[in-house]
Amino acid sequence: MTSLRRFPKAVLFDAYGTLFDVHSVVAAAEQLFPGQGDALSQLWRLKQIEYSQLRTLADPNGSHYKPFWDVTLDALRHAARRLRLPLDAAGEKRLMDQYACLSAFPDTAPALRALREYGAAPDGRALGLGILSNGNPGMLEIAVKSAGIADLFDHVLSVHSAHAYKPAPAAYALGTRAFDASAREIVFVSSNGWDVAGAGWFGYTTYWINRSGAPLEELGSKPRGIGTGMAELVDFVKTLALTEKD
Amino acid sequence: MTSLRRFPKAVLFDAYGTLFDVHSVVAAAEQLFPGQGDALSQLWRLKQIEYSQLRTLADPNGSHYKPFWDVTLDALRHAARRLRLPLDAAGEKRLMDQYACLSAFPDTAPALRALREYGAAPDGRALGLGILSNGNPGMLEIAVKSAGIADLFDHVLSVHSAHAYKPAPAAYALGTRAFDASAREIVFVSSNGWDVAGAGWFGYTTYWINRSGAPLEELGSKPRGIGTGMAELVDFVKTLALTEKD
Repeated sequence: MTSLRRFPKAVLFDAYGTLFDVHSVVAAAEQLFPGQGDALSQLWRLKQIEYSQLRTLADPNGSHYKPFWDVTLDALRHAARRLRLPLDAAGEKRLMDQYACLSAFPDTAPALRALREYGAAPDGRALGLGILSNGNPGMLEIAVKSAGIADLFDHVLSVHSAHAYKPAPAAYALGTRAFDASAREIVFVSSNGWDVAGAGWFGYTTYWINRSGAPLEELGSKPRGIGTGMAELVDFVKTLALTEKD
Repeated sequence: MTSLRRFPKAVLFDAYGTLFDVHSVVAAAEQLFPGQGDALSQLWRLKQIEYSQLRTLADPNGSHYKPFWDVTLDALRHAARRLRLPLDAAGEKRLMDQYACLSAFPDTAPALRALREYGAAPDGRALGLGILSNGNPGMLEIAVKSAGIADLFDHVLSVHSAHAYKPAPAAYALGTRAFDASAREIVFVSSNGWDVAGAGWFGYTTYWINRSGAPLEELGSKPRGIGTGMAELVDFVKTLALTEKD
């Protein structure tokens, strides 16, 4: 059994922005507020991340924690007010319903299946696949089901069980615990620069999906790999398995 | 001595954005990058706050802490790259030099003097004045000197001594310790919505200087008072002193 190739032991994905396109709400937002859909979607997302981080920063033990669904609604309300958009209860419900079943990026499912296939190879690579997301369990369950990728993961982990949002260490620790592996043995994948930096600080082997060609965040925590989409990630994982020992 | 009116015991100010206009760098940025000065200033500020918060969130004990001056430079570099602006070493130095001596808002010094005068009244109001800022001590010293307001404060507190950025409790605790008062007995003043929310969570009596007419942050931590500038704050403090007992 000592010949088993077990590095990396798992690939752990951020969900929102990485597997699911948070800006797939733009069309609905544009119908509600013509000419403002993109601005609303951008500010909504910015405030969603900010609010989650502020709540954990103000108390890492979680006394200001509230589930991501509620944070997402708070962020939508603030974004609409900031942009002076008359968002009524019906519009709010429509946009939140959209958020519940965000589109997966077109390259999400094929890459997950390729990694599944690779991990199931008879020479015992046994690569685990998981999600580690700020989303609360109910949101994640609906999102992975509606994208048809629920059966591809060994673990769908929500920071909700830690009551701490990324990049708090208590949130990232859920991944190493679930896969019973060190952080270095797990490839953490995110399209969010701050999440890649945080996961790198925690010790994960990190991969940045840089779909928009953005510059690196200046946080001194550089990703091990960078690609423009999920297909390159599959190659990265295979190469890593060949070049590293566990 | 029991007749001394001692509520509030102190007024504690955020510095950047509250006393000092962080966007007073726009003119220099505009000269360097015509048509892009405002965008650079906005994104620079956004990344500066984000980077400071991420560093503390990833470890409240400060292992990822770096001084605000360095974070400010990181943020400038990222913002310029994101906007595809060719910022060379000379341009970088010019903008950072500007940041070192930001303009105080025109209403800053008059309001501080009014509060000083009020606090020195013979009936023993003894109101303390302070700054509690993310800025590191060197930055703060230059900023208050160049604005001519250094002698108006009892304490100029930097989160640097806690190696934790606001809204971490360790940062806010510097204020209560310096004034030997409970958080409720101190009026915390900020123009930054997230800072007002964080200070409120910590227990401070909060006042939001809302210069731009922005909507409240949806963080469930509402300021005790809101005004559009510093003059209204002076009235707020005087009224508070009349209506509350210690």
